[in-house]
Amino acid sequence: MNKINNYEEQCAFQEILKIIGGKWSMSIIYILFSGKKRFNELQRTVPHINTRMLVKELKNLAEYKIISRKVFATVPPTVEYSLTEKGKKLEPIINDFYNWGVDNLYEYPGK
Amino acid sequence: MNKINNYEEQCAFQEILKIIGGKWSMSIIYILFSGKKRFNELQRTVPHINTRMLVKELKNLAEYKIISRKVFATVPPTVEYSLTEKGKKLEPIINDFYNWGVDNLYEYPGK
Repeated sequence: MNKINNYEEQCAFQEILKIIGGKWSMSIIYILFSGKKRFNELQRTVPHINTRMLVKELKNLAEYKIISRKVFATVPPTVEYSLTEKGKKLEPIINDFYNWGVDNLYEYPGK
Repeated sequence: MNKINNYEEQCAFQEILKIIGGKWSMSIIYILFSGKKRFNELQRTVPHINTRMLVKELKNLAEYKIISRKVFATVPPTVEYSLTEKGKKLEPIINDFYNWGVDNLYEYPGK
């Protein structure tokens, strides 16, 4: 287990947050916990995201091999996104984070 | 255990991320895992943060009772920040997140 306790580690953590810490990337990742999704499905499910941002975030996540992209030769082409093994490892962490938030920050009506 | 699986929960999660998901707030929180810190110590330890942003983030975290603020009547006044019980509960989650990042994203030299 690595602990964060000096400036150098802080910088490492900030690099990690730059890649994965944004609200859009987090949202996309846990939508994909429930299985592969097409572009339009993601756009409908991520609150308030616009097309340009979604394209950018998906490209970024694919570049770091957190998600994978599969293109089908339909007309128009269909593109499916799913989590890689690396991305799937985030599920318990993001669920813990969400549960902490629900318990401590947000009066969530469905709780 | 709550799971995130619909649009309403997505919105709840985005609210949570708005409060706590930024790179500054995350950085401040885990600097405080090692114990209480004064303003100047935080400013030295959070990479690249400026005074205005640090003031803003500390105010936000205190408002949500994730950190607490103690003022000492010295000249000039000393202010100490520490995690509340609520804030301390984030330690295992943020450590898991960091470790995932070190293992999967970032070629960290000290690993």
